[in-house]
Amino acid sequence: MTTLDQKRIVIVGGVAGGAGAAARLRRLCEHCEIIILERGPHVSFANCGLPYLIGGEIEDQESLLLHSPASLRAQLNLDVRIRSEVRCIRRKDQIVTVTELDTGREYELPYDALILATGAAPVRPSIPGIGRPGHFTLRTIPDTEHLEAWIKDCWYCRAVVVGGGYVGLEIAEQFERRGLQVAVVEGLPQVMAPLDPEMAAWLHDELRENAIDLYLNDPVAAFEEPRPGETALASIVVLKSGRRIEADVVVLGLGVRPESHLAREAGLEIGTLGGIRVNQHLQTSDPRIWAVGDVIEVRDLVTGAWGFLPLAGPANRQGRVAADNICGRATTYDGSWGTSILRLFRLSAGCTGANEKTLRKAKIPFHQTHLHSNSHAGYYPGPEPIAIKILFSPGSGKLLGAQAVGRSGVDKRIDVFATALKGGLTIDEIVDLELAYAPPFGAAKDPVNMAGMAAQSVLAGDVHLLHWNDLAGLDPAKSLLLDVRRADERARGFIPGSIHIPLNELRFRIFELPRDREIILTCQTGQRSYFAFRVLTHHGFRVRNLAGGYRTWKIAARSASDSAAEDPTSADIFSSASAAY
Amino acid sequence: MTTLDQKRIVIVGGVAGGAGAAARLRRLCEHCEIIILERGPHVSFANCGLPYLIGGEIEDQESLLLHSPASLRAQLNLDVRIRSEVRCIRRKDQIVTVTELDTGREYELPYDALILATGAAPVRPSIPGIGRPGHFTLRTIPDTEHLEAWIKDCWYCRAVVVGGGYVGLEIAEQFERRGLQVAVVEGLPQVMAPLDPEMAAWLHDELRENAIDLYLNDPVAAFEEPRPGETALASIVVLKSGRRIEADVVVLGLGVRPESHLAREAGLEIGTLGGIRVNQHLQTSDPRIWAVGDVIEVRDLVTGAWGFLPLAGPANRQGRVAADNICGRATTYDGSWGTSILRLFRLSAGCTGANEKTLRKAKIPFHQTHLHSNSHAGYYPGPEPIAIKILFSPGSGKLLGAQAVGRSGVDKRIDVFATALKGGLTIDEIVDLELAYAPPFGAAKDPVNMAGMAAQSVLAGDVHLLHWNDLAGLDPAKSLLLDVRRADERARGFIPGSIHIPLNELRFRIFELPRDREIILTCQTGQRSYFAFRVLTHHGFRVRNLAGGYRTWKIAARSASDSAAEDPTSADIFSSASAAY
Repeated sequence: MTTLDQKRIVIVGGVAGGAGAAARLRRLCEHCEIIILERGPHVSFANCGLPYLIGGEIEDQESLLLHSPASLRAQLNLDVRIRSEVRCIRRKDQIVTVTELDTGREYELPYDALILATGAAPVRPSIPGIGRPGHFTLRTIPDTEHLEAWIKDCWYCRAVVVGGGYVGLEIAEQFERRGLQVAVVEGLPQVMAPLDPEMAAWLHDELRENAIDLYLNDPVAAFEEPRPGETALASIVVLKSGRRIEADVVVLGLGVRPESHLAREAGLEIGTLGGIRVNQHLQTSDPRIWAVGDVIEVRDLVTGAWGFLPLAGPANRQGRVAADNICGRATTYDGSWGTSILRLFRLSAGCTGANEKTLRKAKIPFHQTHLHSNSHAGYYPGPEPIAIKILFSPGSGKLLGAQAVGRSGVDKRIDVFATALKGGLTIDEIVDLELAYAPPFGAAKDPVNMAGMAAQSVLAGDVHLLHWNDLAGLDPAKSLLLDVRRADERARGFIPGSIHIPLNELRFRIFELPRDREIILTCQTGQRSYFAFRVLTHHGFRVRNLAGGYRTWKIAARSASDSAAEDPTSADIFSSASAAY
Repeated sequence: MTTLDQKRIVIVGGVAGGAGAAARLRRLCEHCEIIILERGPHVSFANCGLPYLIGGEIEDQESLLLHSPASLRAQLNLDVRIRSEVRCIRRKDQIVTVTELDTGREYELPYDALILATGAAPVRPSIPGIGRPGHFTLRTIPDTEHLEAWIKDCWYCRAVVVGGGYVGLEIAEQFERRGLQVAVVEGLPQVMAPLDPEMAAWLHDELRENAIDLYLNDPVAAFEEPRPGETALASIVVLKSGRRIEADVVVLGLGVRPESHLAREAGLEIGTLGGIRVNQHLQTSDPRIWAVGDVIEVRDLVTGAWGFLPLAGPANRQGRVAADNICGRATTYDGSWGTSILRLFRLSAGCTGANEKTLRKAKIPFHQTHLHSNSHAGYYPGPEPIAIKILFSPGSGKLLGAQAVGRSGVDKRIDVFATALKGGLTIDEIVDLELAYAPPFGAAKDPVNMAGMAAQSVLAGDVHLLHWNDLAGLDPAKSLLLDVRRADERARGFIPGSIHIPLNELRFRIFELPRDREIILTCQTGQRSYFAFRVLTHHGFRVRNLAGGYRTWKIAARSASDSAAEDPTSADIFSSASAAY
């Protein structure tokens, strides 16, 4: 039996997961042979930075190249072979066959341990015309070079980004920054699927405020050649609704699929989502083969379901865990919370854990609450509201997930919630969190604490909530919508059909309220209407509070009616909500 | 027996803890009588904002007044009596005697439950001349008015801030912003006692870079009347070293002491630190009297020791807990991690949990590690280094405390560590934290994860550390200091006596190293020297790695020699460290 120091470890794929595994391996094993086989021309590059290279926020392509084969040799004594593709794994013999792409030479390479870090490739659905010139995906540095070459001479350039996920929105922002005219096309009624629709709605507004045309609920039917009179340099993007958008350049941001064909052909277990199945030690169904990064399926740590989460952070951690296990340290990678964040112009939007859609699908019972809280103390200059939604378990009060959108401090709150998820914290514990407060940074009651308090009231039965999308189902004969904001706030807009009694007058005007109907309370954010809820409850009224108040209702309603407008078959729930009052 | 709705609850003190308790009480009990007695002219004001009012960052004093008696009456039906001082508690009769300060009228007020939220008062030690004109403390809005009146006509104004704690440094910053010439005088060898000295050293640099004169390790001996030829409008601040500083205005930032005399006179249990002793329900030794905020002692959640932590966040939570308990909900307040943060010019400095000084004092065994990590991905514009120190338990690997200093992203990392403390997270779990990453916000391996990995290596025995203050004790006959940075880095400064082999050349030049001496490795931050540690360990050398590398050593050494220079009796450990190499 060979000792660790005599082993040869072969890694297929040299970006996040593969490069991370190699670095960790060398720290644990100075003398073993570590070979990285990378199909592309670059190893260890930062593909999360590619959109910013296009937009010019990152000026120098070199800065994305974190390492070269030479620097990895010098620093870590790694044998890095770029433009080298593994075409076959002969598991029984523990051999991979490698093709040098530049010479065509093939050779066999025996391994003691093999790590598959083959990543993921952009999805290219079979839409007619998808392969036309001027269509690009953005996954590698050569991808950006091709895109750059196409747009550099384009004078008044109209870009269509297909898909409103992370990469799609980042590239849309960067195109706009560069002066292109940009449209985003999304088949779903919302962008950023990890967010629930009322949270994604903030992004819809932000896109439109930045002069980006947004087409929701309207998938691409075909990419067509321009007709006479149409001047598109790339394609006419034809949507299901029949709309035709002229595109001088098209970027496909439709997500990625695991590049698992090598594993599949080798007979390794593949999951239902097409990724390699691994155990907690990131071992495949062959105990001498490990897999990490975008090519594997991971457990959703809330629902327990297998998922596909192509994110750089988890890939790095997985690389470390696989290396540990190869070196005899039985560390584990248990799964992911899917923590992620997007910057879109002045907004940031992030999430961690499960969202409402996921929980409904998994049939996991949950409560939710919405709030709008300032990024720091309101009396110190520059506070920015953050919209927060949290989901939590009715029984145990355990946090299940959180989403936040705002101009400042979103990343901090998402990271705190992500840490709370890792710690298995309950709502009571989130109320107790002792976070750093000085006026420039936060508040004596941080938005995270406030979210906890709002949730605590739900769990204690101190408030009964209803949500923005419940309004449409109400019967005006049985329910009355009461707005308790100040008059100046109401003058700037209100939910149709609501009546108005400011909170400060409520105790004196309580006799105006009917006792035979349920009273639905609303204010700007849901906080003062919670105070009103407590007053009315103590006076014996039947009451519910609109979570997130007018602010959540307004953004969600506008977005829902906008995307519904694209598709006349979907019900316009907000016009019926209006009719109800 | 009276029901809750028939009860009268009296609250003494109407700022953070008292006002918070009142608001929560009203939510739980619409009909009970709630009376707030406040000695000062304002309730519910944001005293954390006072320094920024002096500096003009907050322009409007009104913005600090979160509520008035009238708004609290209107919104929460509270009976708020300002300029009303409680002089006596007759516990047996459940009566407080109240003096109306403006009229001199006295009256008795019976209570069913009493909350003491009397806060804390600035410490004024018996230094000769401390009561001279032009000397101020900063705790209330009238305090700022008095200070403002004194400095408004001061043309070229020389301010001396006595005490380098939170308020002292905030007011020093704001004075400088306003154009005053500022000196900070501190009796200890460092500012910001909650930080360990090598972390506070960054603040010393920041103060000096902003033209603030800093006198460390040199307490005030007296405040004297100016002699002929001395032009100070306020005092000559005479330090123990004999130095005389002319001051046109003096601000005393020497901390606060609990205002517990009322409780003491009523025979309630008082702790050794002078604060009111309470149980987990915030009940005093009289079960009808609760106490919250700066007047109580709280448990340090790491050491279990009673402490005194006058912070707004805990005060607010305590108010809520006391209100819950008065209303029959047995919630608890278990103690504090002392999470806090300071902005000082371009730097932020924060901490949570225990520091090295606290742990040594409590005789709690610990490991520590230092690192310097970028606030976000290095390839995206504008990353700023964050210096992080974490302390953790040798056995369980549980996090014990964290400190961070840097220009960006410090508050986020402190809040993540604070949440990790609440969750009882171990170092392994901190490595696993899945934090939000996109290039503008973080890194695939966040600084928090990096801190976890550095600590994990210590726990696993993969690295043996020594610390900046260990260098002086080394015997050059037994130890060799090896710098593995690039030549260009070394050219900008190095630890005296170190030899130099860049990491990338280490494997080929390993024969140059002696096997009869321990090798102490260093680089810029301690990361590459850890890689070198692994190489040399595998080759059989005896090695230790300097935690935090040249960067921590340099800042700590400079600061230690600066403060030592003030006091010739303290050993200059760094000149002896230099001599050792």
